[in-house]
Amino acid sequence: KLFIATGKDEVFSLIQALNIQVTVTPVLPTTIKDDEIDIVIGALRPDLTSFMNEWRTIFSRFHLIIVKDPDLKEELKIPEGFNLDVYKKPDIDRVVGTSTSTIFSGYSCRYFGYLVSRKKYIISVDDDCYPAKDNKGILVDAVAQHITNLTTPATPFFFNTLYDPFTEGADFVRGYPFSLRSGVQCALSCGLWLNLADYDAPTQALKAEERNSRYVDAVLTVPARTLMPISGINIAFNREVIGPALLPSLRLGGEGKFRWETMEDIWSGMCVKVVCDHLGLGVKTGMPYVWRNDRGDAIASLRKEWEGVKLMEEVVPFFQSVRLSGEATTTEDCVAEVANVVKEQLGSKDPMFARAAKAMVDWVKLWKSVGYST
Amino acid sequence: KLFIATGKDEVFSLIQALNIQVTVTPVLPTTIKDDEIDIVIGALRPDLTSFMNEWRTIFSRFHLIIVKDPDLKEELKIPEGFNLDVYKKPDIDRVVGTSTSTIFSGYSCRYFGYLVSRKKYIISVDDDCYPAKDNKGILVDAVAQHITNLTTPATPFFFNTLYDPFTEGADFVRGYPFSLRSGVQCALSCGLWLNLADYDAPTQALKAEERNSRYVDAVLTVPARTLMPISGINIAFNREVIGPALLPSLRLGGEGKFRWETMEDIWSGMCVKVVCDHLGLGVKTGMPYVWRNDRGDAIASLRKEWEGVKLMEEVVPFFQSVRLSGEATTTEDCVAEVANVVKEQLGSKDPMFARAAKAMVDWVKLWKSVGYST
Repeated sequence: KLFIATGKDEVFSLIQALNIQVTVTPVLPTTIKDDEIDIVIGALRPDLTSFMNEWRTIFSRFHLIIVKDPDLKEELKIPEGFNLDVYKKPDIDRVVGTSTSTIFSGYSCRYFGYLVSRKKYIISVDDDCYPAKDNKGILVDAVAQHITNLTTPATPFFFNTLYDPFTEGADFVRGYPFSLRSGVQCALSCGLWLNLADYDAPTQALKAEERNSRYVDAVLTVPARTLMPISGINIAFNREVIGPALLPSLRLGGEGKFRWETMEDIWSGMCVKVVCDHLGLGVKTGMPYVWRNDRGDAIASLRKEWEGVKLMEEVVPFFQSVRLSGEATTTEDCVAEVANVVKEQLGSKDPMFARAAKAMVDWVKLWKSVGYST
Repeated sequence: KLFIATGKDEVFSLIQALNIQVTVTPVLPTTIKDDEIDIVIGALRPDLTSFMNEWRTIFSRFHLIIVKDPDLKEELKIPEGFNLDVYKKPDIDRVVGTSTSTIFSGYSCRYFGYLVSRKKYIISVDDDCYPAKDNKGILVDAVAQHITNLTTPATPFFFNTLYDPFTEGADFVRGYPFSLRSGVQCALSCGLWLNLADYDAPTQALKAEERNSRYVDAVLTVPARTLMPISGINIAFNREVIGPALLPSLRLGGEGKFRWETMEDIWSGMCVKVVCDHLGLGVKTGMPYVWRNDRGDAIASLRKEWEGVKLMEEVVPFFQSVRLSGEATTTEDCVAEVANVVKEQLGSKDPMFARAAKAMVDWVKLWKSVGYST
C-alpha cells in the first residue's frame, strides 16, 4: 500500500525481483517514555547548583539518581525543581554493607546508581560537564541523542563509510550487504567532549592550553573486535541488557578525584566491549557532545607518579585476546568469565589485577542480589 | 632544548620518570613535492570542460593522467592550461596489448592510469565530482587533505574516540596505549561525497530526492580486520606501497557506465584492505569530501536486473575470512595469494569469481612488467 501511495510501485517491484531484503520504511527509534530513563550523577563536588541549573531544561523531565562520593565530607547543595533520589554513604552502607561500600569511592560512586536503578536506560554524565552547543550554536539535547543511539540499530560487522546509516539523511552505501542492514541492538552509547577533552595527565600537561572545538557531526558503530578506551564522562547504556558489565573493579593505587587519575571506566569499557562483541550487541561512539570544564592540575597529577598510563600496555593486548565460551549467554556469565581470565592471565603480574578480578566476581553477585529486585 | 624553550621542562621530566614514550613534537605530515603526485581521471564522458575548470585552482599545480574509457567514441574536450597526459584506446593497446585492453573499459579505465604512473601518490576522482565546500563555506582542497591523510600515521590497532589524533587540535584520548601512538604508515585515503552519496541503485531509486548535506569534520582510521565498501569515486593512495592492489578484476555481466552499476572498486577495496591489514598498513576514511553531481537514472539501472547487490552477500564473508601467509611480504605476493583463495573458495560458485581471480593474477604480472619501469 505504501508503494502506491508514494508512487514508487515500480521501484519496489524491481527491488522485489532482485530478491533482496530492503527496509522500505526508515528505521525510527523506538519511542520510549521518560520514565524508562534514569540520569545517574556521581557527585564528587558538594555544590551541584550550577551543574544542575545548566542541565535543567534537559534533565527536569527525568528521574535523577545522585550518588555522593562517600569520601566527600561536605553537604551536597542541589537546587530545587528536580525529581531525584540522593544516595549518601549511609544509604550505600545499608544496601551493600560497610565492607563493600568502599568500592564506590571517587568516580566509582556512580556505579551505585547503576546498581539501584530500575530503569531500562541509564544516562551518566560527570559533574563537571555542561550541555554543549552544536555547529549551528543550538543546545545539544544529550539525553535525546543518547536515546536515539540506543534505540536505533548498531552495525558492528561491516563499516559504513557514511557513518550511522540510521541518521536522518544517511543510509548504507553501495556495497553494504543487505543482509547486514538490519543491524543489531545497541547496548552502549559513548558521547564526546568539547572544550576540555578526555586526555591523560601527560597529554593534558603538555597541551595545557589546547581546547577541543571540533564538533564532529557523526555517530558511528565501533566495529566488532575493535577495542577503544571508553570514557565514563558522558555515556548511556541499556541497563537491562548490559548493566552488570559496567562495574567498578580496577582501582589504582594512586587513584584520585580527577578524571585523568582514574582508569575504572576504561577497564570497565574494555569489559563491556568484549561482552557486547560476544553477545552480538553494538557500541556506538560520537555524538552527543558535552561541554567539559577545566578542573584539576594535570602537572600535580603527574607528580604522583601515577601508574595508569603504563597499565594500558598490558590491558589492551589482554582484552584483545579474550574470547568467551559458548556457555556465556548472559552479561553476568560473560563478566564472570572475563574475571576468570583476568585472574589467570594478569593476576600474577600485579596484585591490582587480582583485586580487579575479585571485584568483578563480587559485582556479579551484588548485581544479582541487589540489582534486579526492588 | 625544546623543553626549556617551551618552559615545560618539569612536565617532560615527570613524563620521563613514567618511562613512557611520548611524542614531544606534533607529527607533521611529511613535506612532499607537487611532482610526487599524479591526479588520475577516468573519462567516461567526452566533455571534461566544466569538470576541469571547477578543479582548476586545485589541480593545475599537479600532473594529470586522463584515461579515456576505451568504449567512448566521441573526442575528448579538455580545456587548456593543465599539465597532462591523455591515454586513449590506441595508447592502451600499445602498452598492454589488444587482448588485455578490454579490462580498462568503463570506470576501470582509471586503473590504466595507476599502471603507467611513476609517482609515489595517486589521487583519483570520478569525472562527475566537483570540489566541495566545508561547513564554513570554504572550498575544500581535496588533494591537500588526501596527502595529509597519507603522510600522517594511521592507527588501526585501537580506536581513538576523538578520531584522527594527528589532526590539529586533537590527540590520543586517555587510555590509549603509548606504545601504539606512533601508528603505522597510511596506504589509502578514502574520501566522501556531498550532494549525491554513493548509494546502490535500489537505495538511490528509493531515495531519489535525498541529498547528503552532512559534512562530517573527521578523518578516521578504519580498524584492522574491519572491512568496508571502498568507493573509487574519491580516493588517494601510496602507489609505491599498495599500487598493485588497486586493480580491475571483478567485472559484472550487467556492468554499466553509472557508479551504481559497478562493483570493481568495492572488490578491489576489499582486496586492498585485506592486504593492508596483513602488511600492517593503514586505511583512512572521511574527509576530503567532493561534490557529486547527479548522473544516470537509478530506476533504469534497476530494470537491468543488475547482479551487484546480491553479490556482496558472498563477497563480504569471504574477504572477512581470508588470512594471508607469512610468505606474502609484498603487495604483489598478497594479491596473488588473495587471487588463489578466490579461485579455490569462490571460483566454483560463479564464473565471474573465477574470472576475477585470473584477472588479479594477470594484473600482478602486468604491474611487474609495465608498472615499475618506464
